[in-house]
Amino acid sequence: MRIALDAMGGDNAPQATVHGAVWAARDLGFEVQLVGRPDVIQAELGERDVGGLSLPIKPASQVIEMDDHPATAVRARPDSSMAVGVQMLGRGETDAFVTMGNTGAGLAAALLHLGRIPGIKRPAVATLYPTSSDFGFCYVLDIGANTDCRPEYLYQFALMGSYYAELVLGISNPRVAILSNGEEEGKGNKLVVDSLPLLKSGPFNFVGNVEGKDVPAGLADVVVTDGFTGNIFIKTSEGVARLLIDVIKNGIKQYPLARPGALLMKPALQAAAKKLDYREFGGATLLGVDGVVVIGHGRSDAYAVRNAIRRAAQAVEGDVVGAIKRGLKNTETGEES
Amino acid sequence: MRIALDAMGGDNAPQATVHGAVWAARDLGFEVQLVGRPDVIQAELGERDVGGLSLPIKPASQVIEMDDHPATAVRARPDSSMAVGVQMLGRGETDAFVTMGNTGAGLAAALLHLGRIPGIKRPAVATLYPTSSDFGFCYVLDIGANTDCRPEYLYQFALMGSYYAELVLGISNPRVAILSNGEEEGKGNKLVVDSLPLLKSGPFNFVGNVEGKDVPAGLADVVVTDGFTGNIFIKTSEGVARLLIDVIKNGIKQYPLARPGALLMKPALQAAAKKLDYREFGGATLLGVDGVVVIGHGRSDAYAVRNAIRRAAQAVEGDVVGAIKRGLKNTETGEES
Repeated sequence: MRIALDAMGGDNAPQATVHGAVWAARDLGFEVQLVGRPDVIQAELGERDVGGLSLPIKPASQVIEMDDHPATAVRARPDSSMAVGVQMLGRGETDAFVTMGNTGAGLAAALLHLGRIPGIKRPAVATLYPTSSDFGFCYVLDIGANTDCRPEYLYQFALMGSYYAELVLGISNPRVAILSNGEEEGKGNKLVVDSLPLLKSGPFNFVGNVEGKDVPAGLADVVVTDGFTGNIFIKTSEGVARLLIDVIKNGIKQYPLARPGALLMKPALQAAAKKLDYREFGGATLLGVDGVVVIGHGRSDAYAVRNAIRRAAQAVEGDVVGAIKRGLKNTETGEES
Repeated sequence: MRIALDAMGGDNAPQATVHGAVWAARDLGFEVQLVGRPDVIQAELGERDVGGLSLPIKPASQVIEMDDHPATAVRARPDSSMAVGVQMLGRGETDAFVTMGNTGAGLAAALLHLGRIPGIKRPAVATLYPTSSDFGFCYVLDIGANTDCRPEYLYQFALMGSYYAELVLGISNPRVAILSNGEEEGKGNKLVVDSLPLLKSGPFNFVGNVEGKDVPAGLADVVVTDGFTGNIFIKTSEGVARLLIDVIKNGIKQYPLARPGALLMKPALQAAAKKLDYREFGGATLLGVDGVVVIGHGRSDAYAVRNAIRRAAQAVEGDVVGAIKRGLKNTETGEES
């Protein structure tokens, strides 16, 4: 297994990326190809024990920053670590590409240098989301690549998400649902209502509408939605978790007896925090491009980088891209496009 | 101040509704007109001390249930407590109507018997939402009346929400924002992007896009969105809060020492819970219909009913409906319609 890592991407690069790469190489035994400025990467590697690990450097002289305009930056900087890493994947010089950089740039680079899987109309950004189900997670897509969608896109998101849930997450016959403003059939905006017949016809276990509150409750394994709504869904979840933590912290400040209480509760609260920690999720996956591309959170630390590398390897092992290609051949929507 | 209360509406009617009415009449000194089946209401009143309170019964022989189809039920049951209460408001026999019943039926009854404020294209359902700002709340609309919107609707939501925030919540020059998938201008789905020029032109303090995480963080006082996205936003918030509480409770079960810790933290946790408790918010308001209509949560207990009655009275005192009428006259969109 060879994974190309954008050593320059993310708020904490190159420290967190190189550290995460060393961690993954040691724990998981992979070759992690470090893409970026050789001097910078070499300096980081020099501070760590890398004996016996396979961590080759793949030179790229340019960097795409978090606040760069995605499509423009990818075209303007052909020797960026993002572009070089994705091109390695396109040429078969690596099995997957992982970056903590600009999500839009990752998508733009993948579209430019890898292209879509033949038949896929739009790639989606997909992520794990914590739930109170037995498995503890569901898979949500699209969370941001396509702000305005058509029913055929949502159908393909459902197909791709279902394969991913089965092959990478190990959920058999995953329950696929569409995010809506009511669980009853007929509830929804025009896109949801128009998508229903297509979703019902698909070769996956479509279980109907779910509401916003049903997703954390674990009522579906795969949740499809347009990228606008999906983004609101994910960001709102982040914001509410942050608000709750702030409100509890404020309460602790106001009630002196709560402080020793909080200390006693610490292991319980830490277990809760771990469950909701994005660093455990292993980043978002681009589904629908012709290769495994994982984009981690810009704030990722070394642990999150390690987990993103592991997640990418799981997608390679599960052959999600191959499954989508084969699945599209067997569905009408795939043939039409 | 006279408030008509749907005594039959909600999961806990008539106990919670009559109890809440008595509570409001005593605390706030209002006349609360109890709309519903006289025998049922009389029996509930008989169990309470109502000396000196003004709690007249307004007979209505029919009831709309929580799971009835809204528009159909409102037409099929002209003597329902919902229809009778709204008609009292239309005839000027009360100052506001409050129900804990079916939201869709409340909206349908208001549209049928009160109608829209002249010039308003679509009424919106609006609610308070807890934030970590100084004021502690923002005002979000639409959260469910209109699944598919046009820029003119969002413009009018902004106008109505801004008046409400100023006149009822007492926020001077409220910051009005649109919910989007990125804070930068240009981010958004087609509806958001198309609405921007109109929102910028409005006689309110439009501050641009906010993301899902920015709303609980308190970056806006009024948040406008279409009813589909607004519903996802509100329900996701509910679901995430529930998940967090469940995860923390699970943690407490797993770590024995956490249990006394939780006891010590109880006042702090209760203060936090109060801040997030929908019962404090006083229900949702229908903005854009020609009268003050407040719709509380179906699960409301007496305390929530009392707060919904108080909230309705505040909207009457602030003359929100009058302000919207005057405001529409001074704006182009109002004149056009």
